[in-house]
Amino acid sequence: MKDAATTVMERCELLANISEEPGLIHRPYGSQAMNGVNDIVAGWMRTAGMSTRRDQIGNLIGRYEGLGDRTFILGSHLDTVRDAGKYDGILGVMVAIACVQQLHDRGERLSCAIEVVGFADEEGLRFGTTFLGSSAYAGCFDTTRLQLEDRGGMTLREAVRSFGGDPDALEGDGRSGEDLLGYCEVHIEQGPVLEKEDLPVGVVTAINGQSRIRVGFIGEAGHAGTVPMEGRRDALCAAAEFVLGVETLAKAEADTVGTVGEIQALPGAVNVVPGEVRHSLDLRHPNDGERERVRDSLEDRAREIAASRGCESLWEVRQETDAVPADPGLSSLLSQAVEDSGLKSYRLPSGAGHDASQVAALAPVAMLFVRCKEGISHNPAETVARDDVEIAIRVMRRFLRLLGESHSTEDGAVGQAAP
Amino acid sequence: MKDAATTVMERCELLANISEEPGLIHRPYGSQAMNGVNDIVAGWMRTAGMSTRRDQIGNLIGRYEGLGDRTFILGSHLDTVRDAGKYDGILGVMVAIACVQQLHDRGERLSCAIEVVGFADEEGLRFGTTFLGSSAYAGCFDTTRLQLEDRGGMTLREAVRSFGGDPDALEGDGRSGEDLLGYCEVHIEQGPVLEKEDLPVGVVTAINGQSRIRVGFIGEAGHAGTVPMEGRRDALCAAAEFVLGVETLAKAEADTVGTVGEIQALPGAVNVVPGEVRHSLDLRHPNDGERERVRDSLEDRAREIAASRGCESLWEVRQETDAVPADPGLSSLLSQAVEDSGLKSYRLPSGAGHDASQVAALAPVAMLFVRCKEGISHNPAETVARDDVEIAIRVMRRFLRLLGESHSTEDGAVGQAAP
Repeated sequence: MKDAATTVMERCELLANISEEPGLIHRPYGSQAMNGVNDIVAGWMRTAGMSTRRDQIGNLIGRYEGLGDRTFILGSHLDTVRDAGKYDGILGVMVAIACVQQLHDRGERLSCAIEVVGFADEEGLRFGTTFLGSSAYAGCFDTTRLQLEDRGGMTLREAVRSFGGDPDALEGDGRSGEDLLGYCEVHIEQGPVLEKEDLPVGVVTAINGQSRIRVGFIGEAGHAGTVPMEGRRDALCAAAEFVLGVETLAKAEADTVGTVGEIQALPGAVNVVPGEVRHSLDLRHPNDGERERVRDSLEDRAREIAASRGCESLWEVRQETDAVPADPGLSSLLSQAVEDSGLKSYRLPSGAGHDASQVAALAPVAMLFVRCKEGISHNPAETVARDDVEIAIRVMRRFLRLLGESHSTEDGAVGQAAP
Repeated sequence: MKDAATTVMERCELLANISEEPGLIHRPYGSQAMNGVNDIVAGWMRTAGMSTRRDQIGNLIGRYEGLGDRTFILGSHLDTVRDAGKYDGILGVMVAIACVQQLHDRGERLSCAIEVVGFADEEGLRFGTTFLGSSAYAGCFDTTRLQLEDRGGMTLREAVRSFGGDPDALEGDGRSGEDLLGYCEVHIEQGPVLEKEDLPVGVVTAINGQSRIRVGFIGEAGHAGTVPMEGRRDALCAAAEFVLGVETLAKAEADTVGTVGEIQALPGAVNVVPGEVRHSLDLRHPNDGERERVRDSLEDRAREIAASRGCESLWEVRQETDAVPADPGLSSLLSQAVEDSGLKSYRLPSGAGHDASQVAALAPVAMLFVRCKEGISHNPAETVARDDVEIAIRVMRRFLRLLGESHSTEDGAVGQAAP
């Protein structure tokens, strides 16, 4: 019989072939490919002793009953970006099924039931809005999104219906949180930290909060040949100073990342001193207060730079997303499971968003990151080692055992994590 | 009778109405508007006692005979950019005609003839290549340009023909330099220096040489949320450091201007660390050796910055134009004329290109800059004061007198400027 990790690797390979486009992985919400994947994964769930169902948005839910009436959720998403890798999302669902398969193979029941969810949309590829699956599951689906259209002009309302759901039932289709002990998601790191630390897995402290800001500097355009250096009000020089200021501050502040990814100089001609620059700023931190402090300090910095150069600064906060801290109790259990597996328990924030941030509305959440090669993700080059997957399965099995013990000894409470 | 400066101002206003578009000034090479302007200006030349002709490219040439067989040229261009001001180019031709008019009114002849040229194309608006008029006049017209097409698909060859010239005769149509003493062009400064110095006119030391370079930094793209600050190879941070390096070095080096006017970060998304940046670099200096030294030093700087950040730098010199130094002898006479008019003689380089740079192939050149408001040019807000024009006419009249004296005393040589 094949070992669990090899099966997970093979299943990731197999699902990679179920795509809307030959030769690359492309599995948007509601697509035929998603239907195909749901069918195959549902089969694997049933083989692992689970009953399966789909909710209205099309999340695939497998349930392995426990001895008591409480439930713990494992899961991640089954949709992908276009030209995706094989592991982003998929790995978490496959590892969850592998854990349940092992329980089933031994005829073992935990004190709580295990629900494995394959979310139908996390990437938001088709309708430009993320977490359609997990927000519906968590009972916080925004029904105004039903009007959104895909590129072909089909609304989300129509897409839900053609995917087998009732769009009008979505609002009330969220899962009840009453019986829930929590949620734990295994996901590839999508960053280089674990590789750098030479560790196969890490325990997530929080899904970072994020500020997206549109920054502008307005100076004075002029002829690149006739306006002397002294007296110029070059908006790009101001922006350059600010870009380096973001780098310096983000480096100085622990757990902070700050990025200027997009920049435009106007009028944008070789021979004209830029009179105006607009650029993005993406700022993330596991703690909202800290992020806000760094954000305000950068706003001051932009104003200072502008003032010192006779320019004007613009600062438009476009988006603010709160951090979702992992539940301390669940995360302690997860850390213990890592240590019990003979590994150093390493904690790190998640810079990217995950379904766990939605499920957090319903239940305490934790996340286990698995090392991926060079941090590459959203790319066919995405790579995960079989041995790391084996460790992730072992850690999750141990976690479920610790959870069961904790649950049975503490009368339904899991650490501080009881809902 | 109206004074000369008022006449010049009125003529600039009048010519501003002769445009390809109502409501704005737009006079590209070979246009009906250019034909109209040439006809009107030819009339003013004849009123000032000149004979007139057009050469093959369509430059308008007026000639006021002198006592001897040498010739001195005055002039500038009569074409404009789109939505232009009233003075760029035009003013130089109008001041030249005003000077000859004064000679004619007094029945005065200089020892040399005066040729006033209204060049048919300096801006290069229609065919995307500058100095069509003055390069043809100077005998250095590049005949491969005849294949260039305007937006409507008409070739320059056809445009020359429809403007009344023979495109096949262009190559041999350059003026002979044998009888020439030199060329002097009056032009608005198109920069803020004279205004800042509170001076109506300035003597140009050189038309700056120019390097246009395409600079690139290649780092590594990454997820703005998941890649920690340490270990990033952010191409935009490298470019920002370089942009500030250009500013610092150009400020430290006398007479240098360096400008990054255009910048692009790739892939150019809010949430992606830039893996590549491309930007322009425009570098100008009155001395070629100095410009090359600054250019090479910036190339080293780009390489250093890239190396210190684990990035790669790209450096592609796209264009190198040599500086055209003004003739020392003619410029001394011009400075003396400025001082004789009771003003401080102020010398400054020209950051922009001018017809004088082409005529320099034929004869020694000098230029007199006239202050313009806030340095604004190529814009309907271009403004020149009548009183400054009066001074420019006075200076040029004095210059022609000094030139005549110098010429008659030095047997055909003007300072060190004899061809």
